[in-house]
Amino acid sequence: METRGLLDRLFAAQAMGELFSDRARVQGMLDFEAALARAEAASNVIREDAAIAIAAECRAERFDLDALSSSAALAGNLAIPLVKALTDRVAEKDPEAARFVHWGATSQDAIDTGLVLQLRSAFELFDVDLVRLTAALAELTRAHRSTVLLGRTWLQSAPPITFGLKVAGWLSAIQRQRARLRELRARLLVVQLGGAVGTLASLQARGLAVATRLAEELKLSLPDIPWHTQRDRVAETATVLGLLAGTLGKIGRDISLLMQTDVAEVFEPRGPGRGGSSTMPHKHNPVGAAVMLAAATRVPFLVGTLLAAMPQEQERGLGGWQAEWDVLPEICLLTSGALQQAVHVVEGLEVDDARMRANFEATLGVVLAEPVALALARRMDRRVAHELVARMCARAQTEGRPLSEVLLADEHVSLHLSAAEIRRLCDPTAYLGLAESWIDRVLASVAGESRETWV
Amino acid sequence: METRGLLDRLFAAQAMGELFSDRARVQGMLDFEAALARAEAASNVIREDAAIAIAAECRAERFDLDALSSSAALAGNLAIPLVKALTDRVAEKDPEAARFVHWGATSQDAIDTGLVLQLRSAFELFDVDLVRLTAALAELTRAHRSTVLLGRTWLQSAPPITFGLKVAGWLSAIQRQRARLRELRARLLVVQLGGAVGTLASLQARGLAVATRLAEELKLSLPDIPWHTQRDRVAETATVLGLLAGTLGKIGRDISLLMQTDVAEVFEPRGPGRGGSSTMPHKHNPVGAAVMLAAATRVPFLVGTLLAAMPQEQERGLGGWQAEWDVLPEICLLTSGALQQAVHVVEGLEVDDARMRANFEATLGVVLAEPVALALARRMDRRVAHELVARMCARAQTEGRPLSEVLLADEHVSLHLSAAEIRRLCDPTAYLGLAESWIDRVLASVAGESRETWV
Amino acid sequence: METRGLLDRLFAAQAMGELFSDRARVQGMLDFEAALARAEAASNVIREDAAIAIAAECRAERFDLDALSSSAALAGNLAIPLVKALTDRVAEKDPEAARFVHWGATSQDAIDTGLVLQLRSAFELFDVDLVRLTAALAELTRAHRSTVLLGRTWLQSAPPITFGLKVAGWLSAIQRQRARLRELRARLLVVQLGGAVGTLASLQARGLAVATRLAEELKLSLPDIPWHTQRDRVAETATVLGLLAGTLGKIGRDISLLMQTDVAEVFEPRGPGRGGSSTMPHKHNPVGAAVMLAAATRVPFLVGTLLAAMPQEQERGLGGWQAEWDVLPEICLLTSGALQQAVHVVEGLEVDDARMRANFEATLGVVLAEPVALALARRMDRRVAHELVARMCARAQTEGRPLSEVLLADEHVSLHLSAAEIRRLCDPTAYLGLAESWIDRVLASVAGESRETWV
Amino acid sequence: METRGLLDRLFAAQAMGELFSDRARVQGMLDFEAALARAEAASNVIREDAAIAIAAECRAERFDLDALSSSAALAGNLAIPLVKALTDRVAEKDPEAARFVHWGATSQDAIDTGLVLQLRSAFELFDVDLVRLTAALAELTRAHRSTVLLGRTWLQSAPPITFGLKVAGWLSAIQRQRARLRELRARLLVVQLGGAVGTLASLQARGLAVATRLAEELKLSLPDIPWHTQRDRVAETATVLGLLAGTLGKIGRDISLLMQTDVAEVFEPRGPGRGGSSTMPHKHNPVGAAVMLAAATRVPFLVGTLLAAMPQEQERGLGGWQAEWDVLPEICLLTSGALQQAVHVVEGLEVDDARMRANFEATLGVVLAEPVALALARRMDRRVAHELVARMCARAQTEGRPLSEVLLADEHVSLHLSAAEIRRLCDPTAYLGLAESWIDRVLASVAGESRETWV
Repeated sequence: METRGLLDRLFAAQAMGELFSDRARVQGMLDFEAALARAEAASNVIREDAAIAIAAECRAERFDLDALSSSAALAGNLAIPLVKALTDRVAEKDPEAARFVHWGATSQDAIDTGLVLQLRSAFELFDVDLVRLTAALAELTRAHRSTVLLGRTWLQSAPPITFGLKVAGWLSAIQRQRARLRELRARLLVVQLGGAVGTLASLQARGLAVATRLAEELKLSLPDIPWHTQRDRVAETATVLGLLAGTLGKIGRDISLLMQTDVAEVFEPRGPGRGGSSTMPHKHNPVGAAVMLAAATRVPFLVGTLLAAMPQEQERGLGGWQAEWDVLPEICLLTSGALQQAVHVVEGLEVDDARMRANFEATLGVVLAEPVALALARRMDRRVAHELVARMCARAQTEGRPLSEVLLADEHVSLHLSAAEIRRLCDPTAYLGLAESWIDRVLASVAGESRETWV
Repeated sequence: METRGLLDRLFAAQAMGELFSDRARVQGMLDFEAALARAEAASNVIREDAAIAIAAECRAERFDLDALSSSAALAGNLAIPLVKALTDRVAEKDPEAARFVHWGATSQDAIDTGLVLQLRSAFELFDVDLVRLTAALAELTRAHRSTVLLGRTWLQSAPPITFGLKVAGWLSAIQRQRARLRELRARLLVVQLGGAVGTLASLQARGLAVATRLAEELKLSLPDIPWHTQRDRVAETATVLGLLAGTLGKIGRDISLLMQTDVAEVFEPRGPGRGGSSTMPHKHNPVGAAVMLAAATRVPFLVGTLLAAMPQEQERGLGGWQAEWDVLPEICLLTSGALQQAVHVVEGLEVDDARMRANFEATLGVVLAEPVALALARRMDRRVAHELVARMCARAQTEGRPLSEVLLADEHVSLHLSAAEIRRLCDPTAYLGLAESWIDRVLASVAGESRETWV
Repeated sequence: METRGLLDRLFAAQAMGELFSDRARVQGMLDFEAALARAEAASNVIREDAAIAIAAECRAERFDLDALSSSAALAGNLAIPLVKALTDRVAEKDPEAARFVHWGATSQDAIDTGLVLQLRSAFELFDVDLVRLTAALAELTRAHRSTVLLGRTWLQSAPPITFGLKVAGWLSAIQRQRARLRELRARLLVVQLGGAVGTLASLQARGLAVATRLAEELKLSLPDIPWHTQRDRVAETATVLGLLAGTLGKIGRDISLLMQTDVAEVFEPRGPGRGGSSTMPHKHNPVGAAVMLAAATRVPFLVGTLLAAMPQEQERGLGGWQAEWDVLPEICLLTSGALQQAVHVVEGLEVDDARMRANFEATLGVVLAEPVALALARRMDRRVAHELVARMCARAQTEGRPLSEVLLADEHVSLHLSAAEIRRLCDPTAYLGLAESWIDRVLASVAGESRETWV
Repeated sequence: METRGLLDRLFAAQAMGELFSDRARVQGMLDFEAALARAEAASNVIREDAAIAIAAECRAERFDLDALSSSAALAGNLAIPLVKALTDRVAEKDPEAARFVHWGATSQDAIDTGLVLQLRSAFELFDVDLVRLTAALAELTRAHRSTVLLGRTWLQSAPPITFGLKVAGWLSAIQRQRARLRELRARLLVVQLGGAVGTLASLQARGLAVATRLAEELKLSLPDIPWHTQRDRVAETATVLGLLAGTLGKIGRDISLLMQTDVAEVFEPRGPGRGGSSTMPHKHNPVGAAVMLAAATRVPFLVGTLLAAMPQEQERGLGGWQAEWDVLPEICLLTSGALQQAVHVVEGLEVDDARMRANFEATLGVVLAEPVALALARRMDRRVAHELVARMCARAQTEGRPLSEVLLADEHVSLHLSAAEIRRLCDPTAYLGLAESWIDRVLASVAGESRETWV
């Protein structure tokens, strides 16, 4: 096989890459085959020693991936050649046992259960990084709960916030994401065992016993009914990761905008070889944000693919099922890569408080037009106030003077507002509203969360 | 405005169309404005009579939608002209009160909270139809728990199932979908109130009191923090409906395949004007399935849109937020249309048991190759058995004789299987495995479910 | 019908809204029916006076859209009730003629040909706006061919360009887009006439004559073969408009970034009611860019929908065809809206040359690290040069002094570069390379283009 | 790197896999670097022997892909570490020459030009397979120009067509696709050379000469202007391949439906190991169709990704550009795999004419209701005729008698139609209309096409 993983280390977390390697995919299916044999032995469907002989061969490193790949191209799925190869291996040592490899199961039983096992491990990796990201965001929130930052709406300057408030918004979204992953696990972590058409008729009276035991062996639940062509669990996994990728994209978007040379309020951590340019010595590129945004660009379409693949035909899909095989791993990889970069960037983020303040000053305070207008609106018609303040702002900008000065100098304004009032209205730290209250609420939720255990 | 709803009745449930009409969108925002005024009066931010005067005008039918549409095209959102128009209306009766319209809020507060209110109503509609669909599917499952049906995998004939088993698979997916909607509600049904940049600084010390009271007024929760540019709640709504649309697409796919003239096992209910042809008198088109499949084609891309729109800039999105406005309603409409058709089709489905049996017989029983091969595999090498049975199947098909006859006549087979065994192995009703057990499990889950109340 | 067009004026060009209104859709189909009747009369399939009677009733304003909508919801498409209603209207005046309405055609013949007619008109609208946009971009390019602007890569400052070069890049892409639209027209503008299954057997020996005449009547081409389920023409239309939406999104992205308060180099044109805020008097929101970016967010998914809908079943699609009906108009509307905004914004763009220069100066010239490094690399090892310049840049930034000063003061640098060389290397106007050459090439292409006629 | 190509042989053509392997990606970039050095030597920018020394090292097999992958993860793109590694290799032999590696270029120049070179090769592969598919489809069309086949609309039986007509529809779409690829080539096959921000200022006065010579070296065109963030060419490539994937999906859909056990009219070619089942000896799965449909499910979303990635920031994209890197190759791979399967399946398709005729007979002729209704409509009110024929069809189906018999026996019908007329109206070969004419038109177009040369 020609390899195509040159950019994997850029776009995916390495541990996730291992979880979704060719070898790991094969191992997931072999784990199913071994557990099936054990479950069938425990249920007296096959002999104990056959199960032992089968399980002993269920080690992915013993299989020729290149040969499997070629055979899969003919067979149409990976399970057929893998079962054949496993049977051959078992037969070399115990021809009798070889007859009971994959007994009663269908290809999709192995492929789907193997996938569920891979996803369970993937969720553990995601959780580790989400815990780390949560901690880093909480710390950043606390550190900057009072750091004044220009608010920006429609990419135009707006009233002030604190940098902590912005980070608390990211944190809150990550919190919800962890809740979604918990809810998903309960539905997803089930075995697939139905045989050719879901009836498990191949196991006759012992089907339910085998299925129950198989679930126990693999520490998965037994679903109410096999789900070969009911793909909502698979698609739901995609959607939940898609939401995570979207939130990470939001974080990446914000950081990349704050890191613009023209803004320069935060910086991704520097490091040797990181974010340089092939030609420009002064460059420090936001590589982490680029990876987060690239994932947020690609993953929504991959999620859509799995939703579009849901209407699978009758008892086994033709096209839709096959479309899933590489797409769900890709979603895990891209999302893990974005998450890994988010952890790295948030943990090491350089924050330039002084520049934040300087950028605020550079607006001449016109972004405090809102409180001035609200204060005036208590004393005159609201729209008259709105227009008066707009004029004052224009004057400040034309003359390059702070809004407070312009207001203090204006006779009309002075009729309604005292100098002290004007100074207070133009003080950004006096116009942060509930910033700290919201932050406290988010941090309290996180604290509650962190007491929970879900793995 | 030019109208473009000609196909809405085909693709959307009418009640959902009303929920997402122009008028209803405006009413959602006005409900926010009225509740905000009341909350501010209760918190002593504005006068009680101002709140009364404002609330009295918050009736969508009094506003000129055409004028709003024109102004929105300039302003860039709908809230700006609506607030202006509302202010004008209030001012006609109480100029003093008019100053306090929308007091302290930002456009997005009104737009997002209005959307949440629309979605709450939408979920109630979805629930009504899901309850009905659940009941209809459960009844169909029970009625056909033993009706033998050819299994079909990769669109090729396979061992038998029962029609009840197939329907139970649909039912099980619908069950999970109801659980997802319940979980979503807890996260989604929150107010949006943060003012220009989320600090609610405009309300100074009374912000939290107003926000809390606003949530009570609207029977929504107060989120930990405003979520203007954290769009995971909105995108999650899309994903959950996307999963429902996918499951409905699966039902539509199956029905359309079973209804093919060449198969003719089930039929959508007939009715005057339904599914005819402009030229072919004999036609009975599966209109319901077409609507379900059209939704399952379109919705995944609309879901992707909302995921892609998540990385919104800083404190207010530029492009992404605007992309949401028509897309989420579209998802609700298309999914409701598919659901409505599913209810109609499942409730009235015509099932031709005899044709199901005849189609099974037409396979000459070769679809029972599996149990025959498994039985032989207990007595000989498995692959030898597999190939022997493949030969027997080929002979049955070449000679047009049932597999059972071919097996009975074959000397080699007779060495290993008795005539009685062969007959039992070739009896479809003896090869239904766990069909009834799975059905019972699904129906038991539904029974548990139906005792729950979640609205 | 409930209307849902409240945001249409924001997101779509009004003329395009009219082209894709309900009424226009019906008229497209009626134009087909009238032309079919005339073609059949000319081919002696029906009587001349029948054709006249039919054509006389083919006026959309005479039909009850609400009734059509209700019937379409049962029939599964719009043509069935429209043909019935047309037949009824004709029958009132000429019962004999009524028998020949829609003679020999199938629903899809009317729906597809009607769509092609709508698209032809849409292309004319697109062309008008593209010509205007081309002219405006060319003018802006010429006006700012030498206006120095900070280059920005990965959102970090980079060597200088001219604003004209940036605009020439947009212009060049718009040029290619016009070429794509020309190529598309040749394939798309064909009639659909095949009857129930494409054989046009209903017209017996006269089918080809009627089809040929129909094409002439409508000034369309006759395709080699009917294309009921070969949807590449429809999907291609979507892709070509998708490329246009992407290019407009690029323009919107650039403008929104240049218009950030922190950058403030260009501004969308101001106007009464345009881009204000409900609460912030100082705001001037980039509404045009928001619409362009919203379209660039939504359209890619709509394009994907039409590609995904291509594999339509046998002689008439089930789900895929139906999915097209509202999606292609939506693409036209959103793209037209983005294009209209682009024309408005580019024609009225305010460019602040002084701020562009000031922003360049604010970099202290470190963005000219590249030429300095290249100059040094001619005299020393390249990586040594790269690192030396990186140190100089860091010093300039730490000390807040221009790079040129730092270089002039550095002994090591002075060994290799003279003061005059350093000054020249640090002069942005001396480092614009081929900016003007590229501009000239693009303008020459446009000049060539504008001599072409394609409508 | 962990490999993830286990299913590549199933989903992609092997030759395409080689073209888009890691090694080939690196070689594409090295081909750019070698050609750049030669062009710069020819333009007297660098010395001839430096160019020779550089070009000598531009062989991908000499580079450590694993090390490149790790460095790219830090640098954010592949060009930076590749240029470093190349410089090191050159320096070992000629330190002086090493200074001129990648002289004046930017990372994206190498990455984009390398991609264009890969795509040119990919188009040649596509063309080879399209020529083969065209020939196979033309032959199949000719062979079955008169083979009667049941038409099927909405998956319901419809009037007859010929199998040749169906295949001619596929062929016609493939023809258009080849035209699209030709038009695309003219726009796509251009070099990318602009240096850091597109001005190529690094090459001073010799920029245009170098760029021109580079294009000649690589047998590409020189674009009017560098296109670093004008991604329409890249996205267009995706859309054109997306249209091809959609057409192949249509072919796969039709074949999979015709191959259903219940229909059994055509079969994919059989072969050892192809399309078997792990458990069901009788199975012959449509693996080719599954691959075509899987591609048609996935590719539309990948195309959408590239359209969504178009609005790239200023002079270098942040997220969007990075999103392209793996997606465009993926589109090439999946489309090539679908095309390869289409060639295999169409070349070896088994067609069962007898079963086609039998399936037609099984409809009892009710699918000829249309001509009967049309014939009657010439003698009575059209809707009366429509209803009369509908009754006759129902009677035929209830009584299991051919429609012709039912008509012959009906007194009312006999008043209007003679027995001879009825027999002719119920003869499918008399109701094939223009089937052969359309076929001739398509074949004539193909013949014209095949005389063209475009590579």
